[in-house]
Amino acid sequence: MTAVSSPMSVSRGAGAPVARRKLLDELTERILAHIRDEGLRPGDRLPSNRALSERFLVATPTLREALRRLEATGAVELRHGSGVYVRADLARLIMVNPNRLRLDATAILDLLEARELIEPHLAESAARHATDAQLDELAASLDRAGSALGVGGGPGERSGPGAGPDGALHAANMAFHRTLARLAGNRALAQVLDSLIDLHDEEQRYIQALYGDRDHDHHVHLAILAAVRGRAPVKARRLMVEHLRDVRQVVTRALEG
Amino acid sequence: MTAVSSPMSVSRGAGAPVARRKLLDELTERILAHIRDEGLRPGDRLPSNRALSERFLVATPTLREALRRLEATGAVELRHGSGVYVRADLARLIMVNPNRLRLDATAILDLLEARELIEPHLAESAARHATDAQLDELAASLDRAGSALGVGGGPGERSGPGAGPDGALHAANMAFHRTLARLAGNRALAQVLDSLIDLHDEEQRYIQALYGDRDHDHHVHLAILAAVRGRAPVKARRLMVEHLRDVRQVVTRALEG
Repeated sequence: MTAVSSPMSVSRGAGAPVARRKLLDELTERILAHIRDEGLRPGDRLPSNRALSERFLVATPTLREALRRLEATGAVELRHGSGVYVRADLARLIMVNPNRLRLDATAILDLLEARELIEPHLAESAARHATDAQLDELAASLDRAGSALGVGGGPGERSGPGAGPDGALHAANMAFHRTLARLAGNRALAQVLDSLIDLHDEEQRYIQALYGDRDHDHHVHLAILAAVRGRAPVKARRLMVEHLRDVRQVVTRALEG
Repeated sequence: MTAVSSPMSVSRGAGAPVARRKLLDELTERILAHIRDEGLRPGDRLPSNRALSERFLVATPTLREALRRLEATGAVELRHGSGVYVRADLARLIMVNPNRLRLDATAILDLLEARELIEPHLAESAARHATDAQLDELAASLDRAGSALGVGGGPGERSGPGAGPDGALHAANMAFHRTLARLAGNRALAQVLDSLIDLHDEEQRYIQALYGDRDHDHHVHLAILAAVRGRAPVKARRLMVEHLRDVRQVVTRALEG
């Protein structure tokens, strides 16, 4: 461990708490600036803790605290024995509150109503703006959903919430909604939708597994894909409106039940 | 300083970084649980660091790191010499990425387009659902804007971006938009709008001060208030659509200029 003493190091005197906060604020800023200036991308590894400590003239424990803070806010991932990696979430403008409370029923319905406002607009825009490569990506999410459902193979394996096949199906279905949002071409709205889905993802998976109609949802997703691929914005919007209304009815029944 | 030694304290051996992360994750969770269990509200003060260290059986530096992390994620505010206070942001589901990069022109226009999708819906809902007390709050934001403009008093003081009167006017105008969003009754959408405004607040203030028409904006805000107060949802929606289109045109000109 290389603990470099420097003007940025912190004394242990009476003012230490404030000085340390300022030091950490500055240090996280400098680490972020390093990521930007070096053009590091999601998945890229930062220099070693030792190299960063020497570059920024701080002791290793201070550097580690700054990195833990950047991990807590989604900017990097600390992999034990491997290093520190840039996370895709660093590029986000909007994120889910890491300290959020559990959702109550009203909050879940608010999230669904927000999706009902935003997603039809996104489906319509995607039908206008998506490139062929993007449409292939969208189709791939539904291929994965089809595999998880056992479509075209043997009978689909069905099991309770949290089990393997349901987990894969839910992940593929949510990837469909998230990818469609990206295809619409507005980064802010795509991130808003990502956050809304992140927020109720767990409840949604549970409710759909218990109360949802998996095959029906899959066919509706395929119809939306076909409308987007066929450059039919009005139809894509309408199908999404109907789909999300169905989802809300399922969730409302589940919450009342 | 009371450094309580306990099973939760961390060794300085080879596994220390991982153990310390887990300890900090658990400690922040327990501090949040304490806030919930005690029913602490925004502005309420947490027990002293010494009391918290003793309650959670951790050393004071560890507690401080957990509190700094909670501060970095918007849950609490550390006031030097005074204590640790709960922040209103703790109740948010969605927040702005504290590590976000600077916005480019595309990002600013994406944010405005997102507002054009969301805010007319919120204006319409507010006209249907707002209570009289909420409408008074909405009107108060425009009273503050009027004062900052010098409406009804002497000639309004005009000065460059960042100066006092402009800052007060901008804050009052943004309070109008945020309050209207809250009146619509969907917590998720109100928080989405809060985040969108937070994101481009600084650029928006600058652009409006240089390129905007303050008096025109104020009159449009008053017209929206009148429509919401008069329970005219369709009119409230239409006025908001037109208002945000104007705002986008001003911003587009500013970004191109």
